[in-house]
Amino acid sequence: MPDVTGKVRIAIDAMGGDFAPDEIVKGAVLAARKGDADITLVGPEDVVREHLEKNGATPDLVRVVHAAEVIREGEAPAHAIRQKRQSSIVVGIKLVRSGDADAFVSAGSSGAVAAAAATYLGMVQGIERPTIGGGFSSFAPNIVVMDLGANVDCKPHQLVSFAIAGTVYARTIYGIENPTVGLLSTGSEEGKGNELAKDAFPLLRDSGLNFVGNIEGGDILMGKANVIVCDGFVGNVILKFYESIGDRARVWLMGKYPSIRGLVGFIFDRVLPIKKLSYEGEEEGSGILWGVDGVVRIAHGACRAEHIVHGVVAASKAASVDIVGNLKKEIAYLTEQGRLNKGGQ
Amino acid sequence: MPDVTGKVRIAIDAMGGDFAPDEIVKGAVLAARKGDADITLVGPEDVVREHLEKNGATPDLVRVVHAAEVIREGEAPAHAIRQKRQSSIVVGIKLVRSGDADAFVSAGSSGAVAAAAATYLGMVQGIERPTIGGGFSSFAPNIVVMDLGANVDCKPHQLVSFAIAGTVYARTIYGIENPTVGLLSTGSEEGKGNELAKDAFPLLRDSGLNFVGNIEGGDILMGKANVIVCDGFVGNVILKFYESIGDRARVWLMGKYPSIRGLVGFIFDRVLPIKKLSYEGEEEGSGILWGVDGVVRIAHGACRAEHIVHGVVAASKAASVDIVGNLKKEIAYLTEQGRLNKGGQ
Repeated sequence: MPDVTGKVRIAIDAMGGDFAPDEIVKGAVLAARKGDADITLVGPEDVVREHLEKNGATPDLVRVVHAAEVIREGEAPAHAIRQKRQSSIVVGIKLVRSGDADAFVSAGSSGAVAAAAATYLGMVQGIERPTIGGGFSSFAPNIVVMDLGANVDCKPHQLVSFAIAGTVYARTIYGIENPTVGLLSTGSEEGKGNELAKDAFPLLRDSGLNFVGNIEGGDILMGKANVIVCDGFVGNVILKFYESIGDRARVWLMGKYPSIRGLVGFIFDRVLPIKKLSYEGEEEGSGILWGVDGVVRIAHGACRAEHIVHGVVAASKAASVDIVGNLKKEIAYLTEQGRLNKGGQ
Repeated sequence: MPDVTGKVRIAIDAMGGDFAPDEIVKGAVLAARKGDADITLVGPEDVVREHLEKNGATPDLVRVVHAAEVIREGEAPAHAIRQKRQSSIVVGIKLVRSGDADAFVSAGSSGAVAAAAATYLGMVQGIERPTIGGGFSSFAPNIVVMDLGANVDCKPHQLVSFAIAGTVYARTIYGIENPTVGLLSTGSEEGKGNELAKDAFPLLRDSGLNFVGNIEGGDILMGKANVIVCDGFVGNVILKFYESIGDRARVWLMGKYPSIRGLVGFIFDRVLPIKKLSYEGEEEGSGILWGVDGVVRIAHGACRAEHIVHGVVAASKAASVDIVGNLKKEIAYLTEQGRLNKGGQ
């Protein structure tokens, strides 16, 4: 879907995130200067242009699409996207729908982005609700955990759709031909776990995916499965827990060995960049919004300019490898095999 | 409850655990030689005596109580404890009931130990089912996460009983006078999270405990709350995940910096004993069985002799500080305040 220049076209929500618009515009300018993608910023035109100038951007470096309104963190998503049709989130999503952008990146309210995407792009047939998955970078480069918080109190068949999206994720983004799928539970045998895990197990086994059974918390980083499916409550808690450990290790080591505080600081800051474990790769606790009929990437609310650059790279890749087309193909294949109608999917 | 010698009397399941009876008996002998507790081993007398001799124990070092049967990992707990009344688990629990031991330690089937304890010791009034909590040692010395896997698909009022037990845990074991209680969820504001968290929030707020609201995954190790309550599915996944990170960090660092493999190995093995994060303290992923009317400690199935020594120390402390009496007092106090009957407790 690249434009005539051959570049992927990425629309960025200028007003989303804790440090918007400053850090977002700065990131957009950095991404545009890299030259791999055509960048469009979506937001109030005067505000965006002022920040572009501040960052020394020439007028033709970044396109600006005007969006007068801003949806704030904490607004009820469904209500907000209905009321604020001129918001940067709604306008940005519509650029993807109209084909004027190949992907949309936002660090704004993830609930509002998901609601706008589901409403204006629609869902891929066979998937009920948008889901977010992602790798736990650093220690585990070839895994994707799904869902990471977009869906809580899941039904068993939702875990099957996470498994399908995760399989396409691992295949298209990581290049793993036949990704293994594991069900997160409290024991390795079938029948271990809570009601959700027990009910999802046979659905996953019969899904036609490469299901390897239950995996436990200690297996997540060990590569026992490429795709790990769980309720978004569990996924969210684990991801945030994981992200906290690097800082905690640093503080703990300094407290325990005060005489080597300097060395510990040096090691964590310079030699081994594991201060924030998940900041190693490009995922950084954010990710592609799966299941919607278009490429949308939700970035961390706390993201800075360099994370926007990462987000653009990741969104470009997702658009280039056609994640949506691949997801549709996977669902069509599994449906054709007669797998997906078993067990109420 | 110490005997005439002033020592706490600990009964140990000689037949429970992956390395029983060898490592268990070895651990019991080490604990007995330390001299802080009177040790009784429960199991087939000939087998236990043979292993005691192998470890050079004098005949009066450790008492042996005969139990002919063994409950294996994987047997259905309720069925097993009914069928095998001469098992080391049932006989050991009964030593606590009869007052012949102050506490029982087992590395056997945790389901069977919990079932036997609930059946033969009974539950403390106001608590429905046994629960296991514990600290995540190393990085977070003053927290207890409860439940760690004994109870899944919890009801909101169960989280309140975890909070009560956790409060008594933090007060008696950690010496924190007025422990803070946090509800694990996916956002910090009330109303964030799944149905369980949303429904448990008002019950905890009105419980009379020192409730500080929701805490997120990233807050667990940060000391935002001393007691962190969650469904046992989530607690179990997080604990096992946590325990895996030390080894994973070591492997990852060695792979990423092959030229300093030796240094990494040295650091993890000798200087900073965080190869297994949770092996730092005495908890080690096992813990006191809370809610039953007696002191019972469940040890890791994979535990070795030194962990049995730790288990004896921890069980001795739990008996000495009278965790059960304190739990009863806390429940009586909260009930008297009229707190516990709100919201269906």
